[in-house]
Amino acid sequence: MSLRALLPLIAIAAFSSAQSQPARPAAPAMPPPAIVSPEIGADNRVTFRLRDPNATEVLLGLEGSKPVPMQKDDQGTWSITVGPLDPDFYGYSFLADGVALVDPLNWMMKPNFLYKQSEVHVPGPPSLPWEVNDVPHGEVHHHFYKSAVVGDQRDYYVYTPPEYDPRGETKYPVLYLLHGFSDDASGWTAVGRANVILDNLISQGKAKPMLVVMPLGYGAPEIVTRGPSGFNDDALRSRNFDKFRSALLTEVMPQVEKEYRTSEDSRARAIAGLSMGGSESLLTGLNDLDKFAWVGSFSSGGLSHDFNTEFPSLDSSANAKLRLLWVACGTDDGLIGINRGVREWLKSKGINHTDIETPGMHTWMVWRRNLSNFAPLLFR
Amino acid sequence: MSLRALLPLIAIAAFSSAQSQPARPAAPAMPPPAIVSPEIGADNRVTFRLRDPNATEVLLGLEGSKPVPMQKDDQGTWSITVGPLDPDFYGYSFLADGVALVDPLNWMMKPNFLYKQSEVHVPGPPSLPWEVNDVPHGEVHHHFYKSAVVGDQRDYYVYTPPEYDPRGETKYPVLYLLHGFSDDASGWTAVGRANVILDNLISQGKAKPMLVVMPLGYGAPEIVTRGPSGFNDDALRSRNFDKFRSALLTEVMPQVEKEYRTSEDSRARAIAGLSMGGSESLLTGLNDLDKFAWVGSFSSGGLSHDFNTEFPSLDSSANAKLRLLWVACGTDDGLIGINRGVREWLKSKGINHTDIETPGMHTWMVWRRNLSNFAPLLFR
Repeated sequence: MSLRALLPLIAIAAFSSAQSQPARPAAPAMPPPAIVSPEIGADNRVTFRLRDPNATEVLLGLEGSKPVPMQKDDQGTWSITVGPLDPDFYGYSFLADGVALVDPLNWMMKPNFLYKQSEVHVPGPPSLPWEVNDVPHGEVHHHFYKSAVVGDQRDYYVYTPPEYDPRGETKYPVLYLLHGFSDDASGWTAVGRANVILDNLISQGKAKPMLVVMPLGYGAPEIVTRGPSGFNDDALRSRNFDKFRSALLTEVMPQVEKEYRTSEDSRARAIAGLSMGGSESLLTGLNDLDKFAWVGSFSSGGLSHDFNTEFPSLDSSANAKLRLLWVACGTDDGLIGINRGVREWLKSKGINHTDIETPGMHTWMVWRRNLSNFAPLLFR
Repeated sequence: MSLRALLPLIAIAAFSSAQSQPARPAAPAMPPPAIVSPEIGADNRVTFRLRDPNATEVLLGLEGSKPVPMQKDDQGTWSITVGPLDPDFYGYSFLADGVALVDPLNWMMKPNFLYKQSEVHVPGPPSLPWEVNDVPHGEVHHHFYKSAVVGDQRDYYVYTPPEYDPRGETKYPVLYLLHGFSDDASGWTAVGRANVILDNLISQGKAKPMLVVMPLGYGAPEIVTRGPSGFNDDALRSRNFDKFRSALLTEVMPQVEKEYRTSEDSRARAIAGLSMGGSESLLTGLNDLDKFAWVGSFSSGGLSHDFNTEFPSLDSSANAKLRLLWVACGTDDGLIGINRGVREWLKSKGINHTDIETPGMHTWMVWRRNLSNFAPLLFR
């Protein structure tokens, strides 16, 4: 193909990704040198770069770390090298003179309704549960439906394990896995790598083959369309939790159990989630133990502190129905206090549960590890 | 929930999306006024805004339009109002002093390996084929596998129509639908709204229920990981086409035909695609008419001009096997010339085909319309 035929493509490229184009077409001014971001060194140190000649201050905000200032060179490129970082996926963004920016040079992005972040993968050994390995892979199904409960068109995802055959007779247990505030329904697969983690655990015999259902976590979507402050509105948050539970129990669950080969028994149903989804798991699961015998909360956020009102009929008789109640939080998470409070209250009520505290802040690094440790316990 | 318990979330919010937070926490300096972008007026004029006080020039690059300069106000906010725009989805980005930026205030993003763009939806009447309507929705399946042909872990998507039942006996025709250079395998659903378009066409009886298989279009992934210039490398582009065809015919197609209820007859298989995927459709389909009786090319890019070499055995005997050969391009697309050349050559060989020229540049606005007009013709 002649270069001439490609000129329209090149023109688009020159505008849309001026920085990421290794060979730029001739321009009136001297083009800036090609830069790369992020750049991962052999020692797992990572260098982030942003060309922004006119900015007076640029900070790097890396998931799990405090914002740190970047340094400008004489070409107008800001950079910083951090680490060595533990192998993992990290969200990050730049704050340039108060404007939050994703990395123009990096195609990896985290889907999110509020906090736009780029993402960097520091690769690790195949033993890490989120690394894609040469093992059988399950399938991720994207479903769309009109919710009568909420009054909108919405979606949910279903992971089926590699061996799943819709024409077969085997019935599978189901983990309902809930995302956090500001995520969309793809959060647990796109960022949490839940399908990769399950593929690995199942192939190693560490987790039972299971379905994982990942619904949209907003019963009242204005909680997130209003912006970050929506979650601080007590009445809105409460309505969000109520309508989420109703949509899950009366819409998503019946659709899943009709379409898929599922075991319809509380001992074959688990519910777990992170942050807002952790609260939704507790509120939905512990108030309906005839439906869910396995409940997990990862860095739960959004409960009222008035647990007697939120869990009105929960007492030690729950122990006969619960197979596992797993309450986890990172020790550097600002929500560690309320999570310890939840566990104190459970203890005061005589309800069996597993306390999990691990290093870390309010991050996906904590939640990927939570899922990797929680899923193997289920349906035993 | 107390505000105190939310402080860690608020701290994250203050950094990650300082601009999109309607109520910002107190800060030492006077916070800038809250701004909105994009803002869609009742008249379908759209205002784009970017806070960037230190930039000296900011351009708006809107899909289907030439870049236009934005104006700065005394608060450091750049803005421009364009339109009225026809109801549709439009990609856009900002070019701030040579740095391409997505819109920090808009969560809608187009997935792409090279050209990061935000996206704005100018809503239209339900009759537009890409508007989500209250009709039965199909399902989008995301598959993962290790490719022996390419040597990597890769993915493909499969749309199944609303009525599809894996336990039923009905067999369905299959459209293989290919994305363009720089897209990922989700391009046709995430940006092209192929699942929404099929839902609407099927519910109106305008298209036959069909499966749509959307594979990753890179047979040689370095064509895109190398950056925009990869597509200009004739040898690499040729290897990319060859290996793509091999992965499609020997890996994706057998997996699809094993897992799904498909009709395995050339008259029940179509192949179509946009730009690079248009060339892949012609190269794969027209060189294997025993497999594909329906072939579509939308704004094809990347053919060599040496059609006799690329289609060595194609002659008018193809007319007995081809049910449809549909060659489309926008009249303002820089690739209109080569597409007219393809059609001239087909004519010179006596091969029946349908010429389609519509207004428009090298854009998804053209390709969504192409799919909406092409799919109803299939499998009749």
